[in-house]
Amino acid sequence: MALIKKPVTGMKDILPREMEIRDYCISVIKKTYAEFGFESIETPCVESIANLTSKQGGDNEKLIFKILKRGEKLRLDTAESEADLVDSGLRYDLTVPLVRYYSNHQNELAMPFKALQMGNVWRADRPQKGRYRQFMQCDIDIIGEPGNIAEIELILATTTTLGRLGFRGFEIRINERRLLKAMAAYSGFPEDRYSDVFIILDKMDKIGLSGVSDELIESGFTPQMRDRFVELMEGLSGVSGAAEGAGASAGDKLSYLEEKLGSYVEPGVIDSLREIIECVDSTKSADFKMVFDPTIVRGMSYYTGTIFEIAMPELGISCGGGGRYDEMVGKFTGKDVPACGFSIGFERIILILMENGFEIPGSPVKKAYLIEKNMPAARLCEVISEAQKERGEGNQIVITRMAKNKKFQKQQLTEKGYTEIREFYVNPRD
Amino acid sequence: MALIKKPVTGMKDILPREMEIRDYCISVIKKTYAEFGFESIETPCVESIANLTSKQGGDNEKLIFKILKRGEKLRLDTAESEADLVDSGLRYDLTVPLVRYYSNHQNELAMPFKALQMGNVWRADRPQKGRYRQFMQCDIDIIGEPGNIAEIELILATTTTLGRLGFRGFEIRINERRLLKAMAAYSGFPEDRYSDVFIILDKMDKIGLSGVSDELIESGFTPQMRDRFVELMEGLSGVSGAAEGAGASAGDKLSYLEEKLGSYVEPGVIDSLREIIECVDSTKSADFKMVFDPTIVRGMSYYTGTIFEIAMPELGISCGGGGRYDEMVGKFTGKDVPACGFSIGFERIILILMENGFEIPGSPVKKAYLIEKNMPAARLCEVISEAQKERGEGNQIVITRMAKNKKFQKQQLTEKGYTEIREFYVNPRD
Repeated sequence: MALIKKPVTGMKDILPREMEIRDYCISVIKKTYAEFGFESIETPCVESIANLTSKQGGDNEKLIFKILKRGEKLRLDTAESEADLVDSGLRYDLTVPLVRYYSNHQNELAMPFKALQMGNVWRADRPQKGRYRQFMQCDIDIIGEPGNIAEIELILATTTTLGRLGFRGFEIRINERRLLKAMAAYSGFPEDRYSDVFIILDKMDKIGLSGVSDELIESGFTPQMRDRFVELMEGLSGVSGAAEGAGASAGDKLSYLEEKLGSYVEPGVIDSLREIIECVDSTKSADFKMVFDPTIVRGMSYYTGTIFEIAMPELGISCGGGGRYDEMVGKFTGKDVPACGFSIGFERIILILMENGFEIPGSPVKKAYLIEKNMPAARLCEVISEAQKERGEGNQIVITRMAKNKKFQKQQLTEKGYTEIREFYVNPRD
Repeated sequence: MALIKKPVTGMKDILPREMEIRDYCISVIKKTYAEFGFESIETPCVESIANLTSKQGGDNEKLIFKILKRGEKLRLDTAESEADLVDSGLRYDLTVPLVRYYSNHQNELAMPFKALQMGNVWRADRPQKGRYRQFMQCDIDIIGEPGNIAEIELILATTTTLGRLGFRGFEIRINERRLLKAMAAYSGFPEDRYSDVFIILDKMDKIGLSGVSDELIESGFTPQMRDRFVELMEGLSGVSGAAEGAGASAGDKLSYLEEKLGSYVEPGVIDSLREIIECVDSTKSADFKMVFDPTIVRGMSYYTGTIFEIAMPELGISCGGGGRYDEMVGKFTGKDVPACGFSIGFERIILILMENGFEIPGSPVKKAYLIEKNMPAARLCEVISEAQKERGEGNQIVITRMAKNKKFQKQQLTEKGYTEIREFYVNPRD
């Protein structure tokens, strides 16, 4: 009856050192988002299989951990396919459960509904370094707010949180789905192939403009379309005469696009982007830069407006993102409700903090009391009493028997951060 | 493509009001247990099916949510039984995962290992009021400590936590498996039927001593055995000449049993119980009573020594419990390691706090800023700036558009605890 010691494939045990950092981050996140009026909610980890396979999850729907029916409902003899065997599964994200939650409870919720959800999700992905099949997601969403106050608040809340976790010099890169469409329309790409264009554009940071240019041709677009698009992008990076990389201000780039795209872009789109960038820049409390980046695409097809990402340029990675999805609630409830969300890449944040040897601020003083074997009750009470007093003052006290190998025991405790180790003997030594 | 709005059968969405209390309790629990040197850990919610069906879980093993194999491993055509279809399941408790975790990581852990685990578990129980199929457990365990410092620390940590959550006048009822066995041996019950005796004894609080007496006969025990047992129990409740219900002191009861049971009870068992009770009583920081209760049995068969329960006499319910299980780790790893744990009934605690209209101490000031539509960017920046300043001071500020039905909006915000509501207009009114 030997136990399998390892966790199941692709999932991990969390050791105390990492857990301490996770707990600290969770508390900072919850506290900060609460200051912005976000309310914590929780949904079950298990969702009905119908909701999980409703085509909102894209490729994630191929990665569901499915749960077997139970009792009489499980009819193995007559089951013809997987679908006959399962009734539910583990959620692959927090957005589908949020929308279900909202539609189930909308009469009990304040409008706009500002939700914070932190919870595990599961994806049966191919296991790889640093990516696990169970991982924590951390989403804030505002449902019922059509104006860009939603975007401004989401960005301010997220960046304030990152700032409090010690992140500096990062960027929030912002774009607009409707602006992407206007650029595609301006260039003459056929509307039914916009998504192919965007997939290529999304590779800009890896393959550069010349790579994008080549792929457009390889994908069967005409040189005319390609040329118009490349010219537009070159124009953008040349705005204000700045050298490549130095970058023009977001405002200049937006003015350039406004002039170039003319009536291809819906009225108000550019003004709204400008307002978000200006408002965040003038009220932010963390050290980061708002960057207008017309090459940001974001994978999920449900986005309808603003899209944004957290970029850590020094690390060359993205640590989260989000956007507006005004048409998703309606697909489920029959009535569109504006919605916008921002998700922090929680596991990535933890990984960065771990790798940088993050020290939790304000950690309590840690002391260990080693107690000799056979300590009489009365004396033991005295020692515990003293520990209780120290705990009341907020110190962390571990009381433990003195081990035979006391040297090793003390070494272990020191490594664990116990800065003071006291020894208590049956007969106190003077 | 309508979404199923309800959560899956037997599981629940957690609304903001409950979530706030849960988050608060979690933070108090984590902080308090940390002061006692318990380290947070986490294990995956999914465990391999072999571990979940290893006979450590008793009846819970019948209630597992099982997870379907994926990809090529799922062979529906050749599957003959459920076992062929599944490779894992959702954990039904935190003890089996803890033991797996300990055996997987023992070289990386300090000894004794003091673990805190808070996490969801799943049981496909018949749905009933107040009991859900997904619920949070909150366990502390000390692995590697053979002495009763473990029990003392577990009880002090748990009761300090309950005290900080506002609980008063509760009881920790304590007993010993080896004392139960000695009482059964003394009465002449055959050893292979001890567990039947204990199941009957466990009903004492419901059916009283006469009910227990009747059931012993109905279960086929001889009147001699019954009489000796009933006499022992009557003697116990008569100790110190106290009237029934008034109760004798734990010390007197233990002395009575010590004299009566003589060599039936292992040496040291009674002394150790006495020491735990005395030490906790003289060092506790919460308002509760240590009660020696020889009728406490606790269901799980893996307990080997001390067993204890949290009783809330006013509510007539138990809110958690635990005990020593020195032989469980060995069953999995081949080498016995002493272990002792205490679990708080987290969901029950939350239910009590909710029903009592619990107010979270130290909640931030909550203010709402209502912003008129079409506020120009510059003015919006000013307003947000002000909110950011207040947030920096720890206040909770929600910024939202002014609704058409402003009266209803303000009423909703007031109900949510927003004590100050400020209105901002495009043209400030004097």
